[in-house]
Amino acid sequence: MLYCVNGELVPASEATVSVQDRGFKYGDAVFETLRAYDGQPFEWDRHVARLHRSCELLGFEPGYSDEFLHSKTLETLAANDLSEAYIRLSVTRGIHSGKLSPPSDPEQTLVIIVSELPRGGTEGHPVWDGPASVEIVDTARVADDAIPAAAKTHNYLNGILARCESGADETVMTDANGRLSEGATSNLIFSRDGRLHTPTLDGPVLPGITRAVVKELAAQLGIEIEVGSYTPADLRAADGACLTNTTWEIRPIEKVDGTHLGNCEQIEALRTAFDEYVESTHYDSPDS
Amino acid sequence: MLYCVNGELVPASEATVSVQDRGFKYGDAVFETLRAYDGQPFEWDRHVARLHRSCELLGFEPGYSDEFLHSKTLETLAANDLSEAYIRLSVTRGIHSGKLSPPSDPEQTLVIIVSELPRGGTEGHPVWDGPASVEIVDTARVADDAIPAAAKTHNYLNGILARCESGADETVMTDANGRLSEGATSNLIFSRDGRLHTPTLDGPVLPGITRAVVKELAAQLGIEIEVGSYTPADLRAADGACLTNTTWEIRPIEKVDGTHLGNCEQIEALRTAFDEYVESTHYDSPDS
Repeated sequence: MLYCVNGELVPASEATVSVQDRGFKYGDAVFETLRAYDGQPFEWDRHVARLHRSCELLGFEPGYSDEFLHSKTLETLAANDLSEAYIRLSVTRGIHSGKLSPPSDPEQTLVIIVSELPRGGTEGHPVWDGPASVEIVDTARVADDAIPAAAKTHNYLNGILARCESGADETVMTDANGRLSEGATSNLIFSRDGRLHTPTLDGPVLPGITRAVVKELAAQLGIEIEVGSYTPADLRAADGACLTNTTWEIRPIEKVDGTHLGNCEQIEALRTAFDEYVESTHYDSPDS
Repeated sequence: MLYCVNGELVPASEATVSVQDRGFKYGDAVFETLRAYDGQPFEWDRHVARLHRSCELLGFEPGYSDEFLHSKTLETLAANDLSEAYIRLSVTRGIHSGKLSPPSDPEQTLVIIVSELPRGGTEGHPVWDGPASVEIVDTARVADDAIPAAAKTHNYLNGILARCESGADETVMTDANGRLSEGATSNLIFSRDGRLHTPTLDGPVLPGITRAVVKELAAQLGIEIEVGSYTPADLRAADGACLTNTTWEIRPIEKVDGTHLGNCEQIEALRTAFDEYVESTHYDSPDS
């Protein structure tokens, strides 16, 4: 496998960053997890917009143009002959032997990691092994006034600690007020009394790209997703639920804290709509 | 300069970690900042004990013996002919191409970075340029139930965001209840009505080694340091104050949010006692 480091393709085993890179020393870096379908990154524009927003929240501007990031992403996929792929694109605040306060004009480090990630789609098997077991853990989500959840950064210990608390497929955290926020690597949608709900981005919740796409698809299908503030009891009493992220797409939840949830028709409808959306935007040729 | 990576000495320009290292991808790593006086790390036993505690809080055991860490630290100092030095010793949860949940038996990465750091001492100039200007910032300290402050980790964006809020030498954060916690890289001690105070470790405060040493020296001098829970107003109304950390040792604060503080005799006495303690433990030969 070849990875991209600062624009150069290098063998994965030689893809490194300096131990003085702020991305290593402090997690002072932003990233995006993307997915390629048929060789093309899914929702590139939204991902690159979120990357900009992450940088802005950390107080710097990306040192690479969107066009450069896009072309290097495509180049890395092509060099590895990947069409269905996982992509992790990171931009760090660069090598800095000085102190914690960041340099004003850092020479940033760009890293693009890729790997194969088969797609399920309408005809195939999803990438996950099965519906998720979920636990609501004691580890609280980092508050927005400490590190904004809208910034997707290399500071991921909060999610790691949440995962380490439980052997479940995903662990859901609450905020300082005991309100549901999100999973360690996913957003949450659940159904109660025939209506879908998802925690508001006003809390410490990453604005997931898949979450946004699902909301739009739901609107097209006439399925309402209420955005609000919820408690663990709301999720435990759900009729059905799912997790969304770039790699899982829409993954149904079968258990919360050991209690089985039912299947949710609306979530199944959204899964089908998501697969069809991917296929219509990435695989259908209008002339074929 | 030579750094140590996984036990090997390598030129600083070639000292790297894999882009798949969890220390890079997630900040999934612990570290200690140490100081060598006359070629010997100051308070080694306390630093290595805190490193163990950091690992424990993240859910792993250090994959290197204390003796190995000590000998590699000394070897790195000697290879660079350093006697007065800054040392940054990191242990990461290793290279892992998998998911966020950590591997159960990771092959950990060890990194030791060193640089020259002249000592002031009783006769010389302190390492800092002058007394510190301090601002109390809006960025809140990450809560202990999100990431325990007692773990010294590569997730340092909270402190970076605090520093970016202000051009002051140091920025002090409060916790979710508005109580003083600590600076981005230092602990806080302040004087009111002739008595010293420092925020309790019950809040989100790193148990600083220098803080601990200063407390012991204070006890020997008959100077009481009250450990408690304080508000920004308490610090702004202080007679005098200082910051403590490994590189600054004891750095007086001259300004808080623009308001000048006075000199504090007790803090000056502690500075002298600290210098004498360093000299008696590192420079005096009992037989000379």
